[in-house]
Amino acid sequence: MRPVAVIGVGMTKFGELWEKSFRQLVAEAGLEAVRDAGIPGEKIDAMYVGSMSAGRLIGQEHLGPLAVDEAGLAHTHMPSVRVEAADASGGAAFRQALLAVASGAHDVAVVGGAEKMTDVIDQEQINTLATAADQEWEAFFGATYPSLWAMMAQKHMHDYGTTREQLAMVAVKNHLHGSMNSKAAYGSVIDAKTVLGSPMVSDPLRLFDSASNVDGAAAVVIADLETAKRLNPHPVLIKGSGSATDTLALHDRHSLTELAATRIAAERAYKMAGLKPADMQFAEVHDCFTIAEVMAIEDLGFVKKGEGGKAVESGMTGLKGKLPVNPSGGLKARGHPPGATGIAQIAELVWQLRGTAGQRQVQGAKRGLAHNVGGSGASAYVHILEGL
Amino acid sequence: MRPVAVIGVGMTKFGELWEKSFRQLVAEAGLEAVRDAGIPGEKIDAMYVGSMSAGRLIGQEHLGPLAVDEAGLAHTHMPSVRVEAADASGGAAFRQALLAVASGAHDVAVVGGAEKMTDVIDQEQINTLATAADQEWEAFFGATYPSLWAMMAQKHMHDYGTTREQLAMVAVKNHLHGSMNSKAAYGSVIDAKTVLGSPMVSDPLRLFDSASNVDGAAAVVIADLETAKRLNPHPVLIKGSGSATDTLALHDRHSLTELAATRIAAERAYKMAGLKPADMQFAEVHDCFTIAEVMAIEDLGFVKKGEGGKAVESGMTGLKGKLPVNPSGGLKARGHPPGATGIAQIAELVWQLRGTAGQRQVQGAKRGLAHNVGGSGASAYVHILEGL
Repeated sequence: MRPVAVIGVGMTKFGELWEKSFRQLVAEAGLEAVRDAGIPGEKIDAMYVGSMSAGRLIGQEHLGPLAVDEAGLAHTHMPSVRVEAADASGGAAFRQALLAVASGAHDVAVVGGAEKMTDVIDQEQINTLATAADQEWEAFFGATYPSLWAMMAQKHMHDYGTTREQLAMVAVKNHLHGSMNSKAAYGSVIDAKTVLGSPMVSDPLRLFDSASNVDGAAAVVIADLETAKRLNPHPVLIKGSGSATDTLALHDRHSLTELAATRIAAERAYKMAGLKPADMQFAEVHDCFTIAEVMAIEDLGFVKKGEGGKAVESGMTGLKGKLPVNPSGGLKARGHPPGATGIAQIAELVWQLRGTAGQRQVQGAKRGLAHNVGGSGASAYVHILEGL
Repeated sequence: MRPVAVIGVGMTKFGELWEKSFRQLVAEAGLEAVRDAGIPGEKIDAMYVGSMSAGRLIGQEHLGPLAVDEAGLAHTHMPSVRVEAADASGGAAFRQALLAVASGAHDVAVVGGAEKMTDVIDQEQINTLATAADQEWEAFFGATYPSLWAMMAQKHMHDYGTTREQLAMVAVKNHLHGSMNSKAAYGSVIDAKTVLGSPMVSDPLRLFDSASNVDGAAAVVIADLETAKRLNPHPVLIKGSGSATDTLALHDRHSLTELAATRIAAERAYKMAGLKPADMQFAEVHDCFTIAEVMAIEDLGFVKKGEGGKAVESGMTGLKGKLPVNPSGGLKARGHPPGATGIAQIAELVWQLRGTAGQRQVQGAKRGLAHNVGGSGASAYVHILEGL
């Protein structure tokens, strides 16, 4: 595989964007990324779009040509396709674009991720999110996302003594980081009392343990390293990419306290990069619930299994800690438009590695890791980026 | 790009398969393909699933891990992702798997295509098919698929003198071919009178001009050529792959009588293969309506623009003609489960190139072309395969 780099990133503000449609969001993020790369649209050879469920949420499939069309590039007839892996659709699209460029089929590709959640009523949102779970063995029997993650949280607390307060600290930290990110959906700083006093969603997970599904889009431009260096003064190298799957249904897995897909995707990404967890200076991880971040830092190899809660409590994962996790605010504070999240993570890595993350800059960041999960962990995508 | 070959194919019978679920169809086709390749499941490095709208049709997204799980291979944790391009999802998934193997990221990949259409009522089927069109500029104003293709047919008849009878001959030919295909949904031979007397759907297109959306799945196993030769005695080489997009809405295009996406995807595939239209001995084309086949043989370069109708009338595209088109029966007689069609076309190419197509064998077939279209032509995928 020839080396590939990111040369441009863009992202809309995330949130309840009543005034913007799916296609407007896609175009806004895409144009920002292309402008950031400093290239004309005609330089793009192909597009990839990550989206979880636009068919249900806005009645529109066939998002590949839609994105090209809306970007004003239909006259190029460039290949463009949609990639789906539930809320790991962004990470999945990024990986497919990476492999396409690595293969030599394309030199420059744009990868967008987008979701428009708020055009349907709450119940339809919940039903749509459940399409990432096993319909026949989970959703039909009433399992929802919070309930699946709540079971993992209960077991993690039982087996490892992870505390309710440690979970709350994940949310507090991510809201603090998000308060320094003008594109985050939620800019307010919160305290542990707010989390612990918020309404119960599924025991032990409360409202403020849960990432909120919002509207938003993000996009990145990638190119083979040779082309990247010619086109852009600050390419960021994609060192590693790993992907893994697991059973769709939670009850079929060997463990409730680890996501094997995350562990294995990470192993594959580290192997490709020739790096280990200790080589990372920061990470963007998939904190769809607070417990998910605790498990992620264990499964990604940053701490031993069972020590995630303590690591959060120690301050290790804060912006000034040894390994800042979710400097962007994560899914919790940036908000979680399923298809966009994986691409927003890559955008944050690039801003950090360029040293342009402003107030939330991780000092001395040379390498970062992005971790995107689909559903309750049946898909995981891990990417490692390095500043040049 | 390193060369890649097909080493196994499988396909369920297409039709109204009330007794089989989506996941059963995926597993049945996948297992047949892997058995045909003669390899153990553990040899597979990755899966790709093409499906148009399982989120709406069966309430299930996240089809990548579902397919691995249902195949009994969850323990491998192999990467698996879903690719969508409306009813070109099969062709799109095949191309992404090809690029992934060509990149060196994977050596052996399975590509499945599947759709379960009959678990919802007719109106929901129609609405779901319309998600491939431009929702905001076409579907919301009442345009349906037959009406979009009917406009193309009207203009083609007006500009080039294509006759109603010539369109009927496409259906007659494809039903004749389908009668020799035990996996086709419709095995009956029909005559022109049947087509011309069938109920009007959208003037000038009648019921028997229209491919029927049915249930079904197909799968292929691909590998880099070196691995392919080691694993299988009869690999079929993927010589060319081309993909192109166009505006989602029909009214934004320069012409109603050609699909620019088909023409350009074909040019790209021919260029990659170093071949021209005359080098093909047969083709599987996307005949979602009879007019679509007439336009396809023009846009693929087999005859000049406007001469498609006459070519059909001349018998050129029949099984004994100069260029047999849709020896399988095509979408018309094999049936059209949107996500499965593109993969079923590849399977037919492989059976023909191996010389195992039985009664419908194209004599002396060394090279064949598969052509898969999304919606009214906003996506097109063209693949050229060659027997070794």
